[in-house]
Amino acid sequence: MTQGAFAQRYDNLRRMVDRSLAGAVTQNRPKDVTAACRFALAEGGKRLRAIIVLLACQAVGGRARAALNAGCAVEIMHNFTLVHDDIMDHATVRRNLPTVHSKWNLNQAVLSGDVMAFIANECFLQTPQRHLLKVFKVFNKAAIEVCVGQQLDIDFEKAAIVTHEEYLRMIDLKTAALMAASAKIGAIIGGADEKDSEILFEFGRNLGLAFQIQDDLLDIYGDAKVFGKIMGGDIISNKKTFLHVKALEIASVEQSKLLNEQFGLKEFDPETKVKKVTEIYDQLNIKNISERLANEYISTAFNLLGKVSIANERKTELVNIANSLIGRNN
Amino acid sequence: MTQGAFAQRYDNLRRMVDRSLAGAVTQNRPKDVTAACRFALAEGGKRLRAIIVLLACQAVGGRARAALNAGCAVEIMHNFTLVHDDIMDHATVRRNLPTVHSKWNLNQAVLSGDVMAFIANECFLQTPQRHLLKVFKVFNKAAIEVCVGQQLDIDFEKAAIVTHEEYLRMIDLKTAALMAASAKIGAIIGGADEKDSEILFEFGRNLGLAFQIQDDLLDIYGDAKVFGKIMGGDIISNKKTFLHVKALEIASVEQSKLLNEQFGLKEFDPETKVKKVTEIYDQLNIKNISERLANEYISTAFNLLGKVSIANERKTELVNIANSLIGRNN
Repeated sequence: MTQGAFAQRYDNLRRMVDRSLAGAVTQNRPKDVTAACRFALAEGGKRLRAIIVLLACQAVGGRARAALNAGCAVEIMHNFTLVHDDIMDHATVRRNLPTVHSKWNLNQAVLSGDVMAFIANECFLQTPQRHLLKVFKVFNKAAIEVCVGQQLDIDFEKAAIVTHEEYLRMIDLKTAALMAASAKIGAIIGGADEKDSEILFEFGRNLGLAFQIQDDLLDIYGDAKVFGKIMGGDIISNKKTFLHVKALEIASVEQSKLLNEQFGLKEFDPETKVKKVTEIYDQLNIKNISERLANEYISTAFNLLGKVSIANERKTELVNIANSLIGRNN
Repeated sequence: MTQGAFAQRYDNLRRMVDRSLAGAVTQNRPKDVTAACRFALAEGGKRLRAIIVLLACQAVGGRARAALNAGCAVEIMHNFTLVHDDIMDHATVRRNLPTVHSKWNLNQAVLSGDVMAFIANECFLQTPQRHLLKVFKVFNKAAIEVCVGQQLDIDFEKAAIVTHEEYLRMIDLKTAALMAASAKIGAIIGGADEKDSEILFEFGRNLGLAFQIQDDLLDIYGDAKVFGKIMGGDIISNKKTFLHVKALEIASVEQSKLLNEQFGLKEFDPETKVKKVTEIYDQLNIKNISERLANEYISTAFNLLGKVSIANERKTELVNIANSLIGRNN
């Protein structure tokens, strides 16, 4: 499949997910309850998790459409956590738009997130019944892990030192768990056996780890327009990203001092702070180190995919999505 | 059954629920994630919803224990909404203890509530499999209604006038929906047919409506120690309770003016405000009007119970719990 064909295919799936999501939040509920939910779920998201569900289902021989409700459930659950995470992070912008609590207020953001959690359950309840219990268990376990990961992320804010192992453990829960679950849920609905479902779970997990590191990189080395966030936002808010914790781990005494100085500033010019921290990251080769690690996770994902007992041509789209996550052309 | 025997029986069930809840929040999760959840679920709650699940199950011929996980799920879901409602209401005290966001902080309260929603799902997943899908649908529908009710409650804050019909519609969603679902879930697990399950749903709904009006009354006419809240807190915070909306509906021009004056004060002595508003409530006979309405809902609940196709002696405990809700001795 050519790169263009994959992009086209991805767009088609995304539109299918968008339509289904729009339906999920407008059923029989008063307008004012769903306004914020609809906003949180409005087009613009990549729908990555839903599409992993659909592609995993299809890869093992199922029809993508059979996994659509489950895919939407995962996507709604993910966006629910974003609404609440944005509260916790005091984030004002997401995907080039105001966050829910900025556009409305705190109460509306708390409540809209809550109702999204139950709308996600509702979508799951429309999964073919013979798979329902099994996939719901996978989903709910991941949902709890996402919360535990968010707890660790919150705890990191107060921690003086976070090792890169601790950081990876956090993103394993906060980000990778749901992508792992997405691949497994798709696989189960597509009719995969226990072994293949488990391998695809690990495939999704490694994808998630690569994705998060890539996401951390994009905060500094990405394109603001494409990314839909303020550039260097993680540096400005002292967020402990992979770049941050790795840099502090390998920095010289002098570099550590400079970094901690920047991260300790009460008042600062954001642009200068981003520039100074990025300079040290560059001295430490942090971009390469991070890219190398993301690539390692993608390689592990490919190795796992090789072990799934389906024909190789069925795996192409999962390979494509993995490559696209780390900005690699096929 | 004597009143003492019922109190004893209720206590036994509550202890069973407490033990099960304690287990639900400590399984395999890091300490820091569950500290706030455990606090939110700590002993002290009446466990009313869980006990309705258990008693409904038993009334139709099932074993209470078979419904224990579902009862805990409902209870966890209820307490999750309390944690988030307390954020939205800026409430600092619940059951004589600080609210989660007061004891910890906003972020911890948002996140702990979220994880409780998924722990509730987890409890549901342990329901006997042949009933699982059916009861989970009932539960999730109610959960969405609770959120919709909370949205209406939030909207009321800004509304100039709320009619008592609008108020009843709000508590029907915010409070009664989950108590209706509790009775139906218990009934389904206990093996009731569709018709009896539906009647018990309506039974629970009327119980919930009576309960909320009683709860509104207790804010002024209750015992602060027993109630575990600041007395007159609803008046101090201008909360639109049944008493508030009904009083404004039947007040004379002069009384309306006095009430709106009190509810419009930016700075005030809380005690004086509660005293002045209560005086007008008393002139308007609001206590009696409210008690009469709560009693009507309880009567409706009893009529419904009469229609359930089980022997009358099986209904005793449901009658007892209904009476206890409005402080009526058996």
